[in-house]
Amino acid sequence: MRRILVLSGGIGGARFLRGLLRAAPEAEVTVIGNTGDDIHLFGLKVCPDLDTVMYTLGGGIHEGQGWGRADETFAVKEELAAYGVGPEWFGLGDRDFATHIVRTQMLAAGYPLSAVTEALCQRWQPGVRLLPMTDDRVETHVLIDAPDGSGNDGGADGRRRAVHFQEYWVRLRAAVPAHAVVPVGADQARPAPGVLEAIAEADVVVFPPSNPVVSVGTILAVPGIREAIADAGVPVVGLSPIIGNAPVRGMADKVLAAVGVEATAAAVARHYGPGLLDAWLVDTVDADSVAEVEAAGIRCRAVPLLMTDTEATAEMARAALTIATEVKAA
Amino acid sequence: MRRILVLSGGIGGARFLRGLLRAAPEAEVTVIGNTGDDIHLFGLKVCPDLDTVMYTLGGGIHEGQGWGRADETFAVKEELAAYGVGPEWFGLGDRDFATHIVRTQMLAAGYPLSAVTEALCQRWQPGVRLLPMTDDRVETHVLIDAPDGSGNDGGADGRRRAVHFQEYWVRLRAAVPAHAVVPVGADQARPAPGVLEAIAEADVVVFPPSNPVVSVGTILAVPGIREAIADAGVPVVGLSPIIGNAPVRGMADKVLAAVGVEATAAAVARHYGPGLLDAWLVDTVDADSVAEVEAAGIRCRAVPLLMTDTEATAEMARAALTIATEVKAA
Repeated sequence: MRRILVLSGGIGGARFLRGLLRAAPEAEVTVIGNTGDDIHLFGLKVCPDLDTVMYTLGGGIHEGQGWGRADETFAVKEELAAYGVGPEWFGLGDRDFATHIVRTQMLAAGYPLSAVTEALCQRWQPGVRLLPMTDDRVETHVLIDAPDGSGNDGGADGRRRAVHFQEYWVRLRAAVPAHAVVPVGADQARPAPGVLEAIAEADVVVFPPSNPVVSVGTILAVPGIREAIADAGVPVVGLSPIIGNAPVRGMADKVLAAVGVEATAAAVARHYGPGLLDAWLVDTVDADSVAEVEAAGIRCRAVPLLMTDTEATAEMARAALTIATEVKAA
Repeated sequence: MRRILVLSGGIGGARFLRGLLRAAPEAEVTVIGNTGDDIHLFGLKVCPDLDTVMYTLGGGIHEGQGWGRADETFAVKEELAAYGVGPEWFGLGDRDFATHIVRTQMLAAGYPLSAVTEALCQRWQPGVRLLPMTDDRVETHVLIDAPDGSGNDGGADGRRRAVHFQEYWVRLRAAVPAHAVVPVGADQARPAPGVLEAIAEADVVVFPPSNPVVSVGTILAVPGIREAIADAGVPVVGLSPIIGNAPVRGMADKVLAAVGVEATAAAVARHYGPGLLDAWLVDTVDADSVAEVEAAGIRCRAVPLLMTDTEATAEMARAALTIATEVKAA
């Protein structure tokens, strides 16, 4: 299990990776990062999930909130607001702005996002090889109710509108019903350079407790990636982001509902499916569901899944690698 | 003298304008700002002279240094340096960055610089109408000696290279000989919307104690502006930026040498010339040169020209308006 491939969203994936690096310090870890959450703000290209992985593993993360930079200030944002330029609901700090400025400048100079990400990682030295899922533009949109004149964001007259995932997630706090989640552009996107090669060379593929719809699901929506993982012939193991029928953090249940998946550990495993997923870890409070998952053809075990600290997270990573070894031996 | 038109560079022009607004609170002041110092940094469009006027008159200037924002922080710049992204010699603060982000975003959306400047001034309410000299790209370059392998920036083997004005002025601190000053693109530039109209409607045109080569000179290099001023049929009065054979601040003498003009109050007046300039104010220490200027066909008077505070500056503005009235009556 020397070469480990992880499909990662933001906070959950990044924290899991920190545990994985402690659990397997000798491993070569390649991370395929979700870019469906990327957004252009103030003319700058912002890649929240890539940055969260980079900052978390590089020691620059704001530990308390799990995203953004430590010791952050907000002078730029305050000034933009003074100019009447928003959105104000997206919290870009001054240190974070520098990352987006460098990225945007490199993209404008013609470098693909994968090359830009590599350059940014030269500074952060995250200890993993971080690849965006694609260099092409993919933007996750969420279909919500259109305003019906009642003054609320979502009306009830059946008309719908699509909003950027960040608007749904951050501005609306996922507090309105999501009818569909659409990774716009994914069908035309190609895996970034190195992605398919990394999958082919992996000894194990891990789905961390990231959002199964808008994080891991979006990565899998890039044509070629799901197929390459299914065909790689190596164990594919996942860790449930749902504990006790609720997301550990965030609002994964809202987007699960949009794709018709129950917010339970077992339902998420079935959503990935036995054609893709070989093994699944659920939390000890969901031990009841082990039999249900195994009945679906997916090896399953119940272990503590709360990433309370790096050591607890490392223990989760060890359990994932252990069950992967069992899959391989089976 | 209700409608006053001022051609302005950065610090000197901005401070003069503050005095002018005190001296003539009822006047309608239009400022044509130099954009030859503009530079793209970090993918952002920076307009130092326009911003210095806007911040100074809008109450946001760093009073001590005369440019940039008060209460400034430098988190973005520090982070850019941590990414290895420079130049480090250009001091953009966090608050200042916001201005450049808004400007760049609006330009990218297709608005011309004049419209962007108007939008930025909506916030700052500078009390003047601020127009860039042109919406087209003009970039002042300075011809210096090319490196000769000695390790110095400027060698002595006769080879030359052109650097951006900001590189000459800020990075090299004008410490190497300037052989020529070239407003690249000026010959193809058109006056920004409103510029020629403002000149035609002015009751008086004022050259503040801005740099006669790289500030006022660059504005005059935009085809149509010099001619419109000469043909306006209203008094054109200037205030010497040279006192006692040295620039009051900055390094105007270096660029005057590049265009073959002595660093004296009288020589600058002759450089503008009687075909353009009707009246000229020199400092009292240069009272000797009044006769020389008048011999060149330019009305002249010696008054205190140190902008030590707003009231002293207002007094300079009053002297300029007074001599303009004399020109008109003559």
